[in-house]
Amino acid sequence: MTSPAKFKKDKEIIAEYDTQVKEIRAQLTEQMKCLDQQCELRVQLLQDLQDFFRKKAEIEMDYSRNLEKLAERFLAKTCSTKDQQFKFISFSAFTVIMSPADVQAACDFPGLLSTPESFPLRKDQNVLSPVNCWNLLLNQVKRESRDHTTLSDIYLNNIIPRFVQVSEDSGRLFKKSKEVGQQLQDDLMKVLNELYSVMKTYHMYNADSISAQSKLKEAEKQEEKQIGKSVKQEDRQTPRSPDSTANVRIEEKHVRRSSVKKIEKMKEKRQAKYTENKLKAIKARNEYLLALEATNASVFKYYIHDLSDLIDCCDLGYHASLNRALRTFLSAELNLEQSKHEGLDAIENAVENLDATSDKQRLMEMYNNVFCPPMKFEFQPHMGDMASQLCAQQPVQSELLQRCQQLQSRLSTLKIENEEVKKTMEATLQTIQDIVTVEDFDVSDCFQYSNSMESVKSTVSETFMSKPSIAKRRANQQETEQFYFTVRECYGF
Amino acid sequence: MTSPAKFKKDKEIIAEYDTQVKEIRAQLTEQMKCLDQQCELRVQLLQDLQDFFRKKAEIEMDYSRNLEKLAERFLAKTCSTKDQQFKFISFSAFTVIMSPADVQAACDFPGLLSTPESFPLRKDQNVLSPVNCWNLLLNQVKRESRDHTTLSDIYLNNIIPRFVQVSEDSGRLFKKSKEVGQQLQDDLMKVLNELYSVMKTYHMYNADSISAQSKLKEAEKQEEKQIGKSVKQEDRQTPRSPDSTANVRIEEKHVRRSSVKKIEKMKEKRQAKYTENKLKAIKARNEYLLALEATNASVFKYYIHDLSDLIDCCDLGYHASLNRALRTFLSAELNLEQSKHEGLDAIENAVENLDATSDKQRLMEMYNNVFCPPMKFEFQPHMGDMASQLCAQQPVQSELLQRCQQLQSRLSTLKIENEEVKKTMEATLQTIQDIVTVEDFDVSDCFQYSNSMESVKSTVSETFMSKPSIAKRRANQQETEQFYFTVRECYGF
Repeated sequence: MTSPAKFKKDKEIIAEYDTQVKEIRAQLTEQMKCLDQQCELRVQLLQDLQDFFRKKAEIEMDYSRNLEKLAERFLAKTCSTKDQQFKFISFSAFTVIMSPADVQAACDFPGLLSTPESFPLRKDQNVLSPVNCWNLLLNQVKRESRDHTTLSDIYLNNIIPRFVQVSEDSGRLFKKSKEVGQQLQDDLMKVLNELYSVMKTYHMYNADSISAQSKLKEAEKQEEKQIGKSVKQEDRQTPRSPDSTANVRIEEKHVRRSSVKKIEKMKEKRQAKYTENKLKAIKARNEYLLALEATNASVFKYYIHDLSDLIDCCDLGYHASLNRALRTFLSAELNLEQSKHEGLDAIENAVENLDATSDKQRLMEMYNNVFCPPMKFEFQPHMGDMASQLCAQQPVQSELLQRCQQLQSRLSTLKIENEEVKKTMEATLQTIQDIVTVEDFDVSDCFQYSNSMESVKSTVSETFMSKPSIAKRRANQQETEQFYFTVRECYGF
Repeated sequence: MTSPAKFKKDKEIIAEYDTQVKEIRAQLTEQMKCLDQQCELRVQLLQDLQDFFRKKAEIEMDYSRNLEKLAERFLAKTCSTKDQQFKFISFSAFTVIMSPADVQAACDFPGLLSTPESFPLRKDQNVLSPVNCWNLLLNQVKRESRDHTTLSDIYLNNIIPRFVQVSEDSGRLFKKSKEVGQQLQDDLMKVLNELYSVMKTYHMYNADSISAQSKLKEAEKQEEKQIGKSVKQEDRQTPRSPDSTANVRIEEKHVRRSSVKKIEKMKEKRQAKYTENKLKAIKARNEYLLALEATNASVFKYYIHDLSDLIDCCDLGYHASLNRALRTFLSAELNLEQSKHEGLDAIENAVENLDATSDKQRLMEMYNNVFCPPMKFEFQPHMGDMASQLCAQQPVQSELLQRCQQLQSRLSTLKIENEEVKKTMEATLQTIQDIVTVEDFDVSDCFQYSNSMESVKSTVSETFMSKPSIAKRRANQQETEQFYFTVRECYGF
């Protein structure tokens, strides 16, 4: 009937459709697996973040405790040193301006340090500048210890609970989204199944229509054949004598007429059947075409809109909540950084105020009784000796004058010598100053890592002690220092 | 001779001088003690600084190791998760765009992280934004670990050696300065001893002078007495007869004359003695007065100049060297801070780029085969059915038209409903968005310590979970979320 090369067989069409639906079903399953996997990865990530911050909180707490121990150890020591210092002075021949109350205040220092706002300025002024640096260094360690405790606390009591919440929210949303997705997939499969069924109906009705059509065509052919037979017989009978076979012909004519009628009736019946089936087939095809449009629209909606919405639902608030949790972390870190920086600023300020002259002043004031010049030696007249002035009259006058001239000549020689020595000493001192104030303290290089961790250590170690220039500089410093002292000793201090 | 109330006795003067010198001597001893004590305190401070930085280097190294362990632990885990992810996908029905080479690259991540400069941007683009944040978080921990190792190294190999040097230099300078100081003190004591000796000489010579003077005066008195006696005897002899006692008178006269001569001779001798002693006394007093001036000048020079110079010598380079050591510390801390801040900036950038839409896009591209829409369902003509369009002629026309009208009416109803639902959903979504994007991440308060350490913990703990507002917000969030899903489900997704 139809060429197999031209039209697909029903079986082929069904098989193709089955393959297409199977692929979609597999895709839908993979989509669910993908959502599951994303959920799993998200939960895992949030769990990792919690574990990470829990562990980091421990590390920060450890660090904080170690820093506190370090600070306390030296603060206790500083206090006992001050105590000793006080005792040492009080047992000596002179009384000291540092009262026991001052010492007590100094020993209260660790307590005072924990509130840097109330850092006693009065203390600062009584303390030598290197000791001030040292106190601020310990203060900084205390501050960092406290800040890292705060950091640890924020990790545990703010950031981790946020991740717990995000995890809960994500799980709940994934579950709900999956339910919704399952429903959507079920709906889509229902549409695909409907398409299958209307396609089969179309196939069936179309087959019926084709079959009715072919039956109709057969009837039409039979009719044509019957009509053709009658005409031939009449043609054949025409040359014969009309009387000899008249009765036979009438009978034959009668049979033929009833046969044609039968065929006509059958044709009518088949025509009606074909018309009916043809209409059914058209309706079925229309249903199939409509279902096809609807299915393609559903598939498009599912793939283009629903899947995207589904992922949106899974993500609902996830990025925003994660953002807030991580911003909390950033806020904590930046506050820690700021606090640390304030402390470093205070130390830098103290380092800038390292000053030998004011320390000398402070020391001499602190030990005023040790350093204050004694009373002038006064002339003690013997037995009411009334003359308290140098007697420069004869006969001692000439001798005194001679002595004065000798002294003046010696003095002018000394002055010239002194100028020379002073210049040498000043130059020597400047050399020492230059050596000890060379700006060799920038360690930025150490924080520029070139390739790997391995190279870091060697770079840092080289920076200070092992450089030949340092050894040379130190030798130079000591030599110059030695020269300086020799000059001072030679020419009187 | 002299009133004891008016003039100090020699003994008193000597005692006073002794007291004054004793006090100076004690002060000199105290000064040396004070220098010793300053040296001791300085050495102690430098020792403390060394111990402090040695201990802090340990703490920093500990911290660094803990951070590295933390990073490695999660980086290893991240790698194995990625591996799993790859396996999961490759065993599924669809092939995946992630090649084994990509997975290998992902597993090389820990190595890549140690050189953030070469942080692979290509990877970044393939990674979901929360995972990118997570990677940078681990990256930051690695960076901090490395920086704290560097810090520890700088403490040990740069800062501590500096303090060792400063300590050596201080010790040497104190020793030399003390030697010089001892010499200066010896010189000063020599001057004081000289003053004592010239004062005693003055006393002696003045006493001699006074004694000579009194002896002279005695002689003068004797002479006067002798002269007075002669005059009286002559007066007494005048009323008597001249002859009876003439011999006796001549003899007496002779005796008196020799006696007067004797007295005159003695007086002359005493006069010479006195003049000699007087000159000696004047010279001695002059020497004493000159020594007094010299002593006072020496004492002044020692107390005002030498002591100050001595302290300067002790301090030579001390403040400058300490300055450099502490600046090295500051440089290290500031570089660490900068490095940390750079890392935090990178994290902040990643947090800003937390984006659901681009992540969805990325996910769908990553799993392209799972999410790409299938081929359109095409019309499959049955047995060469030529009509592939909807047949809308009679007799199906009227039926189709009626159906179309019904659908249009249903559609317009749905459209109105849809608008309503859409508005409700958008409002609900906005409510959720408002809840999840509330800016509650600033923890500056936690770093503002009011009084003591005790109050810190409670403040921090309160900030997030225990606030009633948080619980209320969360309840609200879940309620809104539930409503959102209900609406979506009721009206088709």
